[in-house]
Amino acid sequence: MNRQLLLAKRPVGLPDEDTWELVETAVPEPQDGDFLVKQFYISLDPAMRGWMNDSRSYIPPIQIGEVMRAGSVGKVVASNHPTISVGDYVSGWGGVQDYVVSNGGGWFPVQPDIAPLPVFIGTLGMPGMTAYFGLLDIGQPKEGETVLVSGAAGAVGSLVGQIAKIKGCRAVGIAGGPEKCAYLLNELGLDGAIDYKNDNLYKAMKRECPDGIDVYFDNVGGQILNTALTQINRNARIPICGAISQYNATEAVPGPSNYLSLLINRARMEGFLVSDFSSRYMQAAMEMGGWMAQGKLKSREDIYQGIENFRETFLRLFSGDKLGKLVLQLNNEE
Amino acid sequence: MNRQLLLAKRPVGLPDEDTWELVETAVPEPQDGDFLVKQFYISLDPAMRGWMNDSRSYIPPIQIGEVMRAGSVGKVVASNHPTISVGDYVSGWGGVQDYVVSNGGGWFPVQPDIAPLPVFIGTLGMPGMTAYFGLLDIGQPKEGETVLVSGAAGAVGSLVGQIAKIKGCRAVGIAGGPEKCAYLLNELGLDGAIDYKNDNLYKAMKRECPDGIDVYFDNVGGQILNTALTQINRNARIPICGAISQYNATEAVPGPSNYLSLLINRARMEGFLVSDFSSRYMQAAMEMGGWMAQGKLKSREDIYQGIENFRETFLRLFSGDKLGKLVLQLNNEE
Repeated sequence: MNRQLLLAKRPVGLPDEDTWELVETAVPEPQDGDFLVKQFYISLDPAMRGWMNDSRSYIPPIQIGEVMRAGSVGKVVASNHPTISVGDYVSGWGGVQDYVVSNGGGWFPVQPDIAPLPVFIGTLGMPGMTAYFGLLDIGQPKEGETVLVSGAAGAVGSLVGQIAKIKGCRAVGIAGGPEKCAYLLNELGLDGAIDYKNDNLYKAMKRECPDGIDVYFDNVGGQILNTALTQINRNARIPICGAISQYNATEAVPGPSNYLSLLINRARMEGFLVSDFSSRYMQAAMEMGGWMAQGKLKSREDIYQGIENFRETFLRLFSGDKLGKLVLQLNNEE
Repeated sequence: MNRQLLLAKRPVGLPDEDTWELVETAVPEPQDGDFLVKQFYISLDPAMRGWMNDSRSYIPPIQIGEVMRAGSVGKVVASNHPTISVGDYVSGWGGVQDYVVSNGGGWFPVQPDIAPLPVFIGTLGMPGMTAYFGLLDIGQPKEGETVLVSGAAGAVGSLVGQIAKIKGCRAVGIAGGPEKCAYLLNELGLDGAIDYKNDNLYKAMKRECPDGIDVYFDNVGGQILNTALTQINRNARIPICGAISQYNATEAVPGPSNYLSLLINRARMEGFLVSDFSSRYMQAAMEMGGWMAQGKLKSREDIYQGIENFRETFLRLFSGDKLGKLVLQLNNEE
């Protein structure tokens, strides 16, 4: 049987018990040109919350009754595809379900001898590409500059901080709680850490970014973005990657009232989507893989078990109760 | 005698009767290397309101007791300067006073046979340079794109709209009231006009920008910026030139709550200061002068009389009760 998690109802605020429905259907048959994937790991990302809203965005919303959209990695267990064979490992948009059939569009093969499978939906997958292109192409950090990143213990943020270090910057991370801040300093080797749950944001940024902020990589929006705006340097760049603080908001969210700091400082705030860089994923993954091999880039996955635990695991994205890349394991590797 | 307008008190909100003090002092004597200017015209610009606040910005605030800072144009009436002679016309930061002595720093000669003197503090001065570099360097409009500009009947905005037309764009202006909108369409030749005092902003932008907004040149901030954000196209650029709607605010001003449209649309909001482009003023002024000579660029000045009328004239910037570049004449040309 194929366990599938369907979007049952659009949530208002945080998803609740009625948001998804778990159903069992027959395992689909691959038609001519298709292959069948048994899925092992599902990527849980903040952006998934946005896909559940019925609003105009960069991709169509998930429809009611559809399988919940998610990145995934698994193994081909049947194939009528010309180049993908049984036993191949592949990653793609498999959704939250045990099995999925694909004609190959949007999927790519992965080599489990290079890295553990969950890494291909993390550091060498979308979060990794997001950190790489968002920081390097949009943020354009220069050696000696100060890079501040929020969500710094998360999938994207933890890579942004480390890549900033690799590029010779002062890297400062913002995360929630002393455990995560210790992780930033001791495990990831960042130069500074700010605990947004316990520090005064303004003073802590002054303390950790004594020369001001040249790049602020924003994953969270809200008051952290607004405070960072007060301390940017001339010609600063602010890549807008996400705004996790407001994805479950049920009321109008205030905008960054300090945005005129962009004018005073001739600075830039710029949104980006990783998919626009797809032609360069291969190059980026090779460079990231090289950094991992040299021990310069650490990849950390926080893996939970069971499709039936999807909702409570997903909510960890917003409670912050996780460290590194959040992954749900659906089936044992075999 | 030299009439001088001094900053007497920092205003809260709109400047009032106590904000400035008009005094009479002796006409200063030019020392060795200096020249003395008799000032004819003073530039009135929204940015001047910001200079009156005691806050960190791109230039130091005007101090209490100092002459009110302003761009100006006048004639040299005495000179001990090696290259500037009596009878030369010059433009610089003369401030709101009849006479000023300078060693030449920040001043440049102007040719009254090229254009009337007020044009050198308008289309061929700071507002012109602001429009030119803000639109072309920060906005980067491409032929066929839609450029929306607020404050479109003002000194900077009216030039932005016309330069957008010159560059082959669909140019749409936002201004207050039917008279200004008629001016945009009939005098400046823009493709569309939005009356923010009478139109529904969202619907009017949909109507006038049917293909969406590629460049939104923002002079005003507030609800107009926030609405424009909902209709930007992929890879849109938003040069932040000013935010006249909030310069006199006495309470916290809401930020642009729709800023996540930057993410969805991979768009950019970027502040700039014209002074960063000073090395290219000459080139820009030559190109703008050429467009004026060809009749492609119209320069309109709204000239009021008398240093004693400074405050009521200055307030026209914020009431919108003026058309084109606001200028105060201090003395008759002679």
